[in-house]
Amino acid sequence: MKAQSIDFWFSVGCPTTYLTVMRLPELARTSGIAFRWRPFSACPLLPEQNTGPFAAYMWRDIERRAALYGLPARVPAPYPLQEFDLANRVAVLAAREGWCEHYVRATYRRWFQLGQEPGIEPNLSDSLREICQDPARIITAAKSDKIGEAYLAATAEARAIGLFDAPSFVVGREVFCGDDRLEDAITWARRGTLAPG
Amino acid sequence: MKAQSIDFWFSVGCPTTYLTVMRLPELARTSGIAFRWRPFSACPLLPEQNTGPFAAYMWRDIERRAALYGLPARVPAPYPLQEFDLANRVAVLAAREGWCEHYVRATYRRWFQLGQEPGIEPNLSDSLREICQDPARIITAAKSDKIGEAYLAATAEARAIGLFDAPSFVVGREVFCGDDRLEDAITWARRGTLAPG
Repeated sequence: MKAQSIDFWFSVGCPTTYLTVMRLPELARTSGIAFRWRPFSACPLLPEQNTGPFAAYMWRDIERRAALYGLPARVPAPYPLQEFDLANRVAVLAAREGWCEHYVRATYRRWFQLGQEPGIEPNLSDSLREICQDPARIITAAKSDKIGEAYLAATAEARAIGLFDAPSFVVGREVFCGDDRLEDAITWARRGTLAPG
Repeated sequence: MKAQSIDFWFSVGCPTTYLTVMRLPELARTSGIAFRWRPFSACPLLPEQNTGPFAAYMWRDIERRAALYGLPARVPAPYPLQEFDLANRVAVLAAREGWCEHYVRATYRRWFQLGQEPGIEPNLSDSLREICQDPARIITAAKSDKIGEAYLAATAEARAIGLFDAPSFVVGREVFCGDDRLEDAITWARRGTLAPG
């Protein structure tokens, strides 16, 4: 049975997505599964999660799990993002032009390893230059109505699928939510069940 | 280094706790780690999670993961519980008397395998009889002020620790939230880090 592809729905700005973004290339390589990077705005779908004990837990969980995966992580990273929409509009443009994964990895690496917030300088332009994209062209295009409409359309599509948080992985009609479900999504893409073979 | 013990904080009534409750005895045996079963009322700590796309996802996630662990699971199970507090007051009494794990496993098994809701009949009395406890004595004692105060105290303690959901696992000062962090808690109890050895 040929493995299904996996839609990886995410927003630049969701902290736990750092783990996914950094792990995905190797997992895609070893599994042979095609991942489609699908930026959208998770903000309208989220309950209020940024305050209180949950926030402290989230950073600690990321710190511990980054160690599990051998990833450096300076936490807490700047949060929430001042320019969340711009950071994700660039990802929407990038998805149309074929360099989404490269941009998202570059901006997350600066966010969690250098403490530089995505969507603003110096992260925004440095991440684009690192992947050989022209910051002036990209930032102008990302702010255009065309990309704004594509961003809204992606977010509406996510809502229609039933997503309620990010990152989420969609295999056919099956939704898997959270970096900690990435392995489940891969198993599902291969075998259509999580039950041991 | 001797493994630390793990406090397992839970509420009867949290669906995903089914996975933990059924997996814990075998994991405790194979890991040699002592788990302390700590019933409390997670309700005051939770945001509204019972409606909309989250609920549909929760049941599907439990169903898939039950298959992963080889557990039967009829979902959706009756939810939320009509007699949540009574179901958990019995667990508080059980923790004082040393049969908490037996009661919680019995009532969860009936909930997810027979579709019988915890805290009401026939689940309540049948679960108690299965573990050789007298339903009349237990139900009266569970409704007493003494157990009511112990239940409130446990819930206050959970809040003071910084818990915000259940199940949660506490190893020293480290909090791990969700059935999907049980293995992380075990690793931490053994080694004080999740980083590969």
